[in-house]
Amino acid sequence: MSAPVIQFLFDFISPYAYLAWTQVHAAAERTGAAVEPVPVLFAGLLDANGQKGPAEIPSKRIYIFKDVLRRARRLGVPLSPPPTHPFNTLLSLRAVSMQAPGDGRRRLIDALFAATWGGGRGVEGPAEVAAAAAAAGLDGAAVVLEAGSPEAKARLREQTEGALAAGAFGVPTMLVGEELFWGFETLDLVEAHLRGEAPAPGEDALIARWRDTPASATRRGLRLPVTGRTG
Amino acid sequence: MSAPVIQFLFDFISPYAYLAWTQVHAAAERTGAAVEPVPVLFAGLLDANGQKGPAEIPSKRIYIFKDVLRRARRLGVPLSPPPTHPFNTLLSLRAVSMQAPGDGRRRLIDALFAATWGGGRGVEGPAEVAAAAAAAGLDGAAVVLEAGSPEAKARLREQTEGALAAGAFGVPTMLVGEELFWGFETLDLVEAHLRGEAPAPGEDALIARWRDTPASATRRGLRLPVTGRTG
Repeated sequence: MSAPVIQFLFDFISPYAYLAWTQVHAAAERTGAAVEPVPVLFAGLLDANGQKGPAEIPSKRIYIFKDVLRRARRLGVPLSPPPTHPFNTLLSLRAVSMQAPGDGRRRLIDALFAATWGGGRGVEGPAEVAAAAAAAGLDGAAVVLEAGSPEAKARLREQTEGALAAGAFGVPTMLVGEELFWGFETLDLVEAHLRGEAPAPGEDALIARWRDTPASATRRGLRLPVTGRTG
Repeated sequence: MSAPVIQFLFDFISPYAYLAWTQVHAAAERTGAAVEPVPVLFAGLLDANGQKGPAEIPSKRIYIFKDVLRRARRLGVPLSPPPTHPFNTLLSLRAVSMQAPGDGRRRLIDALFAATWGGGRGVEGPAEVAAAAAAAGLDGAAVVLEAGSPEAKARLREQTEGALAAGAFGVPTMLVGEELFWGFETLDLVEAHLRGEAPAPGEDALIARWRDTPASATRRGLRLPVTGRTG
């Protein structure tokens, strides 16, 4: 029997994806699973779901960074703001959509995350991607050239469409078969799933009930009366 | 010196608020804090931020319930779907916006959450709110009457506006002074804050850097090229 696979869906834009990336390999080792990185464009997931990202609500943008900072400290993972945010992640995501010899792809992802959230100089432009590739022991110019290829563009597009088809709505998302886990705080649940501890007895029946639970109100009908009106 | 206060912002619509409510009192006891429940209309927070709720994205709606179910099992907290969802929470939120003698308000919140997520018959209508009030040892008819008063309506409106002013964008939110904590998974951070362990050295400087981090891309400029176009 081949090893189970954790598909790790990510975008360099997300500090939670960075934190999860620093932890997923240990989780995989503990459960005998393999990690398959799947770069996806977070903006594409948001667009498809008509949703705002956490950095697009001002108070949430500040809160999220504080939360990430505290989580990072507890894990002993270095974290500081990238040079700009949001930034264009297309080139970096396309770069890691291509194969690399040995563990080159994992090292390139490590280096690009470090350049983003680990105190580096960002990953937005060709010079930054090439520098990260060189830090990962790869040929920087070749990596940037390949990232610009039609094949790399097509792969990122397909991966993002595949993520949507699998039900992903954010990053990081971890897929084990068809089971989806969203967010940094779910690695313990991924491990429980891989150890065969899920679903718990009765869980499937409750989930089926939830699927069939009807709505009895819409948000439009729940608008808070503005001052001066009575509700 | 008076005891520190954890303001607990919630709406019965949220199963994470339910889970957090079952845990916040123990966290408060461990840190010598008092819990002040603050009912707010989650729909009002979403509207103000132009954001969708988790139950408004189909794949996220299913995922969130699975996640809640797993968290509830680990905590030994009963959890099953309410009769309908989403449902109108105005009456129930207004009911708990009013004071009650002794710990009557806490018991009423307990009962209304139990009627929603603990296997009960919901809290949408006057009959359900009255039944929950009776289960909490209160006069059901009087609670429903008071919940319909202009004062109750004004309080809920003010609390929701106050939540927005404090930067809240979701529920549960816990406020300790001006420090905001969002989500069920942050009770440990609330406790660390109350114990004076936060902010960690250097944290404020990094947060200030994050506040000043400029954007170098917009989501509009990051649209994934549709099939057939090149990026």
